[in-house]
Amino acid sequence: MLNTITLVWVYDREMSSSEWSLDVARELWGLNHSIRGDTITVDDEGYLAISIGGSSVRIKDVMEKYGFDVAYIRVLPLIGKAMRLVYETFTELARIHGFKGGLQPVFPMKVNPIDIVIDAIWRYGEKYGWGFNTGSIGELELLSKYAGKGPRILVYDGVLSDNVARILEGFREKGWRVVVDVESEHDLDILSKHPELEVGLRIKPLFKPGGKWAHSAGLEGKFGLTVNTLVKLREEYKWIEERARLLHVHAGSQIYKWSDVEAFINEVYNIYVQLTANGFSRLELVDPGGGLAYPYLDTRSGSIESPDYTVVDYFNHMLRVFSRLDKHPVLVYEGGRYIVAAHRIVVAKVVDVRPYSAEQLSSTGTSVVEDVLRGVRTIRDLKAVLKEYRRLIHRGSQGQQYTLEERELAEDLVSKIREEVVLKLSELLRAEPSSVDEVINDPFLYKLATSPSKRYILNLSIFADIPDSVLVNQYFQVAPVQRLNEKPDVVAVLGDLTCDSMGEIGEYVSHVRMHVKADDWFTRMDLRLVMAPYKRLKLGGVPLHLPVKGENYYVAILDTGAYQDPLTMKHNLIYGAPEIIMDEVDGEPKIEVVERNGKYL
Amino acid sequence: MLNTITLVWVYDREMSSSEWSLDVARELWGLNHSIRGDTITVDDEGYLAISIGGSSVRIKDVMEKYGFDVAYIRVLPLIGKAMRLVYETFTELARIHGFKGGLQPVFPMKVNPIDIVIDAIWRYGEKYGWGFNTGSIGELELLSKYAGKGPRILVYDGVLSDNVARILEGFREKGWRVVVDVESEHDLDILSKHPELEVGLRIKPLFKPGGKWAHSAGLEGKFGLTVNTLVKLREEYKWIEERARLLHVHAGSQIYKWSDVEAFINEVYNIYVQLTANGFSRLELVDPGGGLAYPYLDTRSGSIESPDYTVVDYFNHMLRVFSRLDKHPVLVYEGGRYIVAAHRIVVAKVVDVRPYSAEQLSSTGTSVVEDVLRGVRTIRDLKAVLKEYRRLIHRGSQGQQYTLEERELAEDLVSKIREEVVLKLSELLRAEPSSVDEVINDPFLYKLATSPSKRYILNLSIFADIPDSVLVNQYFQVAPVQRLNEKPDVVAVLGDLTCDSMGEIGEYVSHVRMHVKADDWFTRMDLRLVMAPYKRLKLGGVPLHLPVKGENYYVAILDTGAYQDPLTMKHNLIYGAPEIIMDEVDGEPKIEVVERNGKYL
Repeated sequence: MLNTITLVWVYDREMSSSEWSLDVARELWGLNHSIRGDTITVDDEGYLAISIGGSSVRIKDVMEKYGFDVAYIRVLPLIGKAMRLVYETFTELARIHGFKGGLQPVFPMKVNPIDIVIDAIWRYGEKYGWGFNTGSIGELELLSKYAGKGPRILVYDGVLSDNVARILEGFREKGWRVVVDVESEHDLDILSKHPELEVGLRIKPLFKPGGKWAHSAGLEGKFGLTVNTLVKLREEYKWIEERARLLHVHAGSQIYKWSDVEAFINEVYNIYVQLTANGFSRLELVDPGGGLAYPYLDTRSGSIESPDYTVVDYFNHMLRVFSRLDKHPVLVYEGGRYIVAAHRIVVAKVVDVRPYSAEQLSSTGTSVVEDVLRGVRTIRDLKAVLKEYRRLIHRGSQGQQYTLEERELAEDLVSKIREEVVLKLSELLRAEPSSVDEVINDPFLYKLATSPSKRYILNLSIFADIPDSVLVNQYFQVAPVQRLNEKPDVVAVLGDLTCDSMGEIGEYVSHVRMHVKADDWFTRMDLRLVMAPYKRLKLGGVPLHLPVKGENYYVAILDTGAYQDPLTMKHNLIYGAPEIIMDEVDGEPKIEVVERNGKYL
Repeated sequence: MLNTITLVWVYDREMSSSEWSLDVARELWGLNHSIRGDTITVDDEGYLAISIGGSSVRIKDVMEKYGFDVAYIRVLPLIGKAMRLVYETFTELARIHGFKGGLQPVFPMKVNPIDIVIDAIWRYGEKYGWGFNTGSIGELELLSKYAGKGPRILVYDGVLSDNVARILEGFREKGWRVVVDVESEHDLDILSKHPELEVGLRIKPLFKPGGKWAHSAGLEGKFGLTVNTLVKLREEYKWIEERARLLHVHAGSQIYKWSDVEAFINEVYNIYVQLTANGFSRLELVDPGGGLAYPYLDTRSGSIESPDYTVVDYFNHMLRVFSRLDKHPVLVYEGGRYIVAAHRIVVAKVVDVRPYSAEQLSSTGTSVVEDVLRGVRTIRDLKAVLKEYRRLIHRGSQGQQYTLEERELAEDLVSKIREEVVLKLSELLRAEPSSVDEVINDPFLYKLATSPSKRYILNLSIFADIPDSVLVNQYFQVAPVQRLNEKPDVVAVLGDLTCDSMGEIGEYVSHVRMHVKADDWFTRMDLRLVMAPYKRLKLGGVPLHLPVKGENYYVAILDTGAYQDPLTMKHNLIYGAPEIIMDEVDGEPKIEVVERNGKYL
């Protein structure tokens, strides 16, 4: 796989003699994590390993043992762990706040309705009475096999029909508690005929606390009733006061700012107080929906990849607020991502390494560039030189015609300048680490310093395996499964097997919260800046090692257990992968391979 | 379905006595279309109907006959028609330009690899020798059943492996012409072992002619070789000069500006000339890829929904440019959307009608609003009043707490103001139609005038049936299947059955290119502005009729035949639909129902 082209840069192992530690590796590759941190970790020899039933299983070993180039690893105990974290956090804080209302957790099936996940929710949720939230006939049918296995709660918030109502009656007859959200007069018409079903009021909040919620909150939101519609409907359907037991208000999805969550909880509290005081006195369950952000990178930065709050902050505020009431309601926890995101890891082999852009091959123009850069002493000098370079590039892009030689020369020069500038930049920063802010604050220099030099082709389809990456530009944490005890060599964009230009991962957040010597801020071969202590950097690709000849180099994409299974797409007919299911039975690891290749649903 | 709440507005049929014509309907609902226009059309009684084998089939009738609430209608002759348009346009223009090189059309399988579509491509493509472009093992396997049925050309541009190369050899042995794109040294290594396979050079253009192509063109593009890499590889793999027969350059996808397409063709020509003059003299096929924009709305506006050029402009420029050469190459046509987009229509029933936002129910505050608006004589006066209103709304959204009555009052007032302003706006525009520009140029007024008042819940999943709507915000043309001889009643956002706020269609382009009296610019009930002659308007929802009690009201989503089948997602486990397959056999219509419910792939 490696070839002469990939080895163009002068590569001097001696130069980077600084010690690289596993602590830095864990920070750089996002492995210090509140849910999966203890389970998915780095062993002493630098391999990514899974702790299960007292054993440590290296991902590389499993992949090689079964000969897989791509696989989904499902670590089911991580689902149980997330449930326990929620339950214990709530219980401890309820004690502190003297809250008497209790917790009713439910799993929103849309987040992952495949049988293996629902089964884990059922089993691990047994002791907490974990219920379900469903929104379609398909989900109800899938859940029906558990209807006879013992009672749970079921909150239905999809579109209602007579058919759906009959299915829901079936659950109730088997002892389940069933609550049905109403969203229109149409729903009330149907519910009139099913007097045994309890009712949930899904209310639209009056104003949006933040722009991000625009799609699913506010009076224009897709779901729920406005208060004036509710008041109007009450006149005609008087029984709704009697049957309404649950208040349901949704805030959106992946809300990563605490101030937004806090404002939303206050709004829910206000609506609850007003409704119970105005006729709906039997409301006893409060469901503020999902929407809590999952920490794909767990650094509390309050950015798209990491919320600035935890489940502790969430329950603490909920409990403080609802403890004010004389009669404490039952709080519904509807988190879905938090429960299942961590359990699924996509692992794929690097099948080709390509240059990201043009490569600097001939020495044409080298001396010119070197001459220019020789006089550069500071970041400021460098910026001045770059201004000149950009003017050149801009002039070149005006759609001129080129001979083959001119084209080659232009490519060479573009590439040479880029590599020389990056080299110079790393020299300057090593000499004067404090000037890193100057780099970060200059958009062009920042982009250059963190730009990819390689494109790694992975044996997967982003559309099939991590569809949210293209669907909503979701951030997923990526890490190598081996050589974490070595500094990364390059910054690489990850391309998939599809013939679609969107099938790429070209963004990576580096947020290293510890002191690291400036010598270690750069990749070994392409000298890209991949960290700056205590700063959140957005890189143009993933810091990875260059595979050596004959090496099976794998990349892991973490936290893909929420939404990715149901949203899978079959672009180019590339989809599905064998699954490695890891569970614990009586404290022993149980590893099973299932080759359904994506044919779950 | 209809209820008192939906009938809040004063609705006076007499008031809108102006004649509404089918000509206006065809313009408003995008039915004047160069590919499907003759086939999917409006009959004299205002029904959307499909002309097939000399018959006219009403969509509403078919849906009711089979009792479907959702279905995909596939009109296979539209695939044949698009092929014929391409072939005849090329042939005619080649004659005019004296071009001797010929046309080699290929269908890129990724655009729609389901068997029924591939079969139609095979059958309708027989007389044109229509070939295939593939990019994965899955696509090759699906195609392999045609390998023995007669030779075609196959261009492979996916990731290469020994396994893939062996499969490709199989096609060649059965008489197919096989060309394999190279993108890295890895590919050349494999191709050394398969000397019979012809080679395609996929070249990255040096500069990007426009920002829109950023993902797939330019030196950073996912696909192709830079010229300097090619020159370097040639040193080691000398045979590439001998075997390279096809030049492949891609521009991107849905490029709707002619100037970008033109610049791109010139760049391809330049690369071709340079490569043939510099060793690659056996290049004989020129493939400028797909990327041509499909006219989802066929108005030549040069906007995202409609390119400002046609296939005539495209071939005319291609042929003019390549006719300059002494030896004319064969031009490869790789259009995918153009060939299959029109063949598939998603039809779904409206199962619930909800207010879009708060409704104005009580008369509280009415007099205040009326008083304020009474003095308004011009659009300018209205703008001044609105400025005041926005200040009010803004103050209200600062997260205050409300009692239930205050909340209801606030909702009422918001709604009342909106409705009264829209009413006033329509009065002013009827009186003074020329002031429509003043409305369009004021973002807030424009938004209000074209805002939705209803949310129609459709029996479908946008994630499953038109995934590109959420994936890339693709514009799809929507039309009612009945009552096209009536003015629309409201502007409605279309919500689907999923519990996902993204499952909505809330954008509609109205581009009516004919004179229409100002009385007809507005919907009947909510008085929204849905057209202005010769102007392209973006509406906040689809102009539709309000279903009357007991009416099965269906909506058709057109041109969903490209990409939507393979990209389907199973969000909430809502997916799949029965299919109504329409074809012509010996000039007779053949209608068949297939209930595979999305289980094609």
